[in-house]
Amino acid sequence: MRDAYLIGAGQSAYGAFPDESYRSLFRTAFEAAVESVPAGFDPDAIDEAFVGTLGVGGRQLGLSGPAVTEHVGLGGVPCTRVENACAASGFSIRQAVQAVKSGMADVVLAGGFEVMTDASSDATKYWLGVSGETEWERLSGTTFSGVYAQMASAHMERYGTTREQLSRVAVKNHENGARNPKAQLGFECTLEDAQSAPVVADPLTLYHCCPTSDGAACALIASEDVVESYTDDPIRVAGVGAGSDAVGLFQRESYTEIPASRRAAEAAYEMAGVGPDDLDFAEVHDCFAIAELLAYEDLGFCERGESGDLIESGRTERDGDLPVNTSGGLKSKGHPIGATGAGQVVEAFAQLSGEAGDRQVDDPVYGLTHNVGGSGGAAVVCVFEREVMV
Amino acid sequence: MRDAYLIGAGQSAYGAFPDESYRSLFRTAFEAAVESVPAGFDPDAIDEAFVGTLGVGGRQLGLSGPAVTEHVGLGGVPCTRVENACAASGFSIRQAVQAVKSGMADVVLAGGFEVMTDASSDATKYWLGVSGETEWERLSGTTFSGVYAQMASAHMERYGTTREQLSRVAVKNHENGARNPKAQLGFECTLEDAQSAPVVADPLTLYHCCPTSDGAACALIASEDVVESYTDDPIRVAGVGAGSDAVGLFQRESYTEIPASRRAAEAAYEMAGVGPDDLDFAEVHDCFAIAELLAYEDLGFCERGESGDLIESGRTERDGDLPVNTSGGLKSKGHPIGATGAGQVVEAFAQLSGEAGDRQVDDPVYGLTHNVGGSGGAAVVCVFEREVMV
Repeated sequence: MRDAYLIGAGQSAYGAFPDESYRSLFRTAFEAAVESVPAGFDPDAIDEAFVGTLGVGGRQLGLSGPAVTEHVGLGGVPCTRVENACAASGFSIRQAVQAVKSGMADVVLAGGFEVMTDASSDATKYWLGVSGETEWERLSGTTFSGVYAQMASAHMERYGTTREQLSRVAVKNHENGARNPKAQLGFECTLEDAQSAPVVADPLTLYHCCPTSDGAACALIASEDVVESYTDDPIRVAGVGAGSDAVGLFQRESYTEIPASRRAAEAAYEMAGVGPDDLDFAEVHDCFAIAELLAYEDLGFCERGESGDLIESGRTERDGDLPVNTSGGLKSKGHPIGATGAGQVVEAFAQLSGEAGDRQVDDPVYGLTHNVGGSGGAAVVCVFEREVMV
Repeated sequence: MRDAYLIGAGQSAYGAFPDESYRSLFRTAFEAAVESVPAGFDPDAIDEAFVGTLGVGGRQLGLSGPAVTEHVGLGGVPCTRVENACAASGFSIRQAVQAVKSGMADVVLAGGFEVMTDASSDATKYWLGVSGETEWERLSGTTFSGVYAQMASAHMERYGTTREQLSRVAVKNHENGARNPKAQLGFECTLEDAQSAPVVADPLTLYHCCPTSDGAACALIASEDVVESYTDDPIRVAGVGAGSDAVGLFQRESYTEIPASRRAAEAAYEMAGVGPDDLDFAEVHDCFAIAELLAYEDLGFCERGESGDLIESGRTERDGDLPVNTSGGLKSKGHPIGATGAGQVVEAFAQLSGEAGDRQVDDPVYGLTHNVGGSGGAAVVCVFEREVMV
């Protein structure tokens, strides 16, 4: 198994962009990724592409991968659309790593996009519903925030997690997002704001829910055989793991964990030969505040049931010993579904390159990204390592 | 790059099955694939899964891969949905090969499904339209048969190809499909039937167009490290290649070729170290009769412009020197979009295992499968080799 390296990553801004198309957003992200490669990059080097998008809503449905790669001048390059709901481009990153490790490609583009804000409110409700289980959740009226609200209620009941602890996730992530020029909701919020916001699905308030977003993100993955052409400071994909599970929450034994995340993390840690204690930062899937707390537990940042204490301790704040969601996370940065996983990798690349500006954590070596599809039907975890030259 | 092997493959019947669901069809295909492994197979050995589906039409949209793998008892196995329109499961096969070659998996399930016959006629029109280019083809009224009709007209104009030659594709494929118990249109047709059938999109008649189908297909791909546990007669995935192109036909320089197919074939032949002359049979993407003729040229079975002569020569009939679409092809066997690519591999497995019954070709060693997305926005080609023990 030859090694794969992250040589570049870039994204569009996240937000509501009525004057942009999914193609133009993807182009912005692609160009940013190309620009980010330290020693320069010629797109002709790209052997293959994987593009993640949920892609519902009247745009190109079939072949939406090739539809964006042709737009950025890669018409002849094999392109495959990858989809696992909100984890679509997390899985496109993983496929890029597999393609490089397989020996079938040396340089692979992995990205994703979504345009959501032009859908009507009803369409968005439908659309987000389908990321959960369709037949028994959506068609019986369960919204996606309703699914996560059930998880939050169960966690509060079982472990004594409080609504204030959920709100602290929002406060932390907005504090980070306010320092991210690409963030959709790039402003700070107070604990009081989060606590007193309108309830979306009890116990979740508006500040416990990520926004609806447009955006795109891209990363470039290269093999060990060519990485030296692109950078003197290689960032290795040390580990990558995936997990799946029943798509419907009601089909699972517990509402207080996401086994797909645990499986993905175990596989990624094993491949990387590191554990949660080695991490210097993490981008986790906080589509709802409870999702970040579940991630703390599923990824081994704390014991089961102790995530409320962990957020309260401040250890996952930017100046803590394990900063989580320095980008602002899905909550503040935004959640353009198909772009999200690749967007997390954009933050990992910035942090490990020392280019994260006001959000920079101190001299990181290991960073993790964690992307969940639906309410946990699929999850993917990557561990990136800045190779420290001796 | 370690070698990947095809150790099993199976499918549901193709047709209109109002009493089946996409899950039940997938289960039938999965069980048939498991049953087909010569030395027996325990599904617990599956490390990873890739599932292809276009998946539009009100069923599970996001996470439709995990939604079927959980149904067959693989809930904990990483599953990724792969989509390139009508080539969805051709690409799931390719991803399975990459996963095995990457060293990240030893046994991979690759499959696909589609349920199409329960959609209204308008929905089907919409649905098939999206496999082509949405904005400038479908929204301006071009149907999918219209797109291929333009290719047929251009080929007739440029090379003198005749409507009778198109009809010979239908006659040949129905002759084969009549011997395939899984075929949707498993009956023979005469040249007169094909010629005199109602025109769908001039010059294409009903017999020049594949049906709308429900169905599922699965294959099992294993690494060289474990293949001996499953068979004494290994079938190697000698080559696999992919190509992409502009999604819209109108964006391409020529209407008389599918460059994505050519690129995919070149890559597959190069990896396999063989060429078209070495093939003993091929399953090609005949969604419309002209598509099979284009495939002859794009895959190198004949020179450019000579596909009309090739079909007329009889060489691609079952007793010819390069039998094409012994399964009946998309035309007679059926075309449940997401199942089609994996279904072609089912035929390749049957032929190379000597299990193709009335359709068996004589002692084949090399077989090719060719799956096209849309009108050529993506294509994937595999070359399988029965390893002959010395």
